[in-house]
Amino acid sequence: MDCSNSCTSEQKLQVRKLEISDKGKGYLELLQQLTVCDSVSDKEFEKRFEEISSYGDDHLICVIEDDQSGKIIATGCMFIEKKFIRNCGKVGHIEDIVVDSEARGKQLGKKIIEFLTDHAHSMGCYKVILDCSIENKAFYEKCGYKQKEIQMAKYFN
Amino acid sequence: MDCSNSCTSEQKLQVRKLEISDKGKGYLELLQQLTVCDSVSDKEFEKRFEEISSYGDDHLICVIEDDQSGKIIATGCMFIEKKFIRNCGKVGHIEDIVVDSEARGKQLGKKIIEFLTDHAHSMGCYKVILDCSIENKAFYEKCGYKQKEIQMAKYFN
Repeated sequence: MDCSNSCTSEQKLQVRKLEISDKGKGYLELLQQLTVCDSVSDKEFEKRFEEISSYGDDHLICVIEDDQSGKIIATGCMFIEKKFIRNCGKVGHIEDIVVDSEARGKQLGKKIIEFLTDHAHSMGCYKVILDCSIENKAFYEKCGYKQKEIQMAKYFN
Repeated sequence: MDCSNSCTSEQKLQVRKLEISDKGKGYLELLQQLTVCDSVSDKEFEKRFEEISSYGDDHLICVIEDDQSGKIIATGCMFIEKKFIRNCGKVGHIEDIVVDSEARGKQLGKKIIEFLTDHAHSMGCYKVILDCSIENKAFYEKCGYKQKEIQMAKYFN
C-alpha cells in the first residue's frame, strides 16, 4: 500500500526521526515486539536519547507514526561507521527493524528500510549492511539487498 | 604461538590502540591486504583518525606492532552501538580484521579478537557481533563466537 495514493485521511502516516516524546507514543512497547525492552525509566530513556542524538546524522532512528491513533507503529535505526578502508569510506549499519503486529502487510518495513538506505546514500556511504534471520531474507531482497556473509555472535550473559 | 611464553626478544609484540604515527608503520598497507585502501593522504588520515578518536572508547582500533620491524602486522576495530532494546543495552561490532600475510599462524588474529571482545565486555555490552565469510567461520568459533544470522548488503557503486 502506497499511502500517497490510496490511504484515507484516517490512515495518514508520518515517516520521521524519533522524538523524545515518542516514549509516550508506544515506542518502547513496539520494540518489545522485537526483543526484551521492558524496564526503561523516563530518565534512562532521556539519557540514551541524548547519547544517540549527540552523534547527529551518524545515528538515526526512524519511526512511522499513525496520526489517527497517535502511536508509533514501525521503527528502525542506522548508524554510520567511519573507516580507513575504501579510502576513508563510510558504511551504514541497519539495526532493530520492527513493524507493529497489527500494522503488517502495508509495506511499512519497506518504507523504513528505504528511509534509512536513502539516508546512508546521502551521507556518502559506499554500502549498507544488516543482519537478519533466514526467514527475513526475502523481505530484504525486495528492498534491494543481497546475502553476502554470515553473522557470528558472542553473548556475555 | 603464545608470545608470553615462547617468543624470543626479537619477536616482541605490542598489542595496543592505533596511534596517529601508525600510518608511517604500514597500517594502511596492511589494510590493503583486506580491501581497497590505496589513496589516503596524510591529511585525510589525520582527519579520519580524529573523527574516530572523538568517539573515545566507543570506537576502538586495535593494532599489533612488531617491535623488531617497527611494522603494524595485525589490526581490527570495534565500535559500540547504544540501543534502547535490552533495557538500553550496548552491542560491540567488530570490523576489518586483518593479519599480515607473512605473520599468519601465530594466533595474532585471535589476540586481536580477544582484545576487542574484552573491551566490549568491559564497556558493558551484552553481546559482540561480526560478519565474516563462511571460510572464516571456524576461526571465529575458536574465538568463542557462534553463527547466528545472515548478513545482507546493498552497494551504492
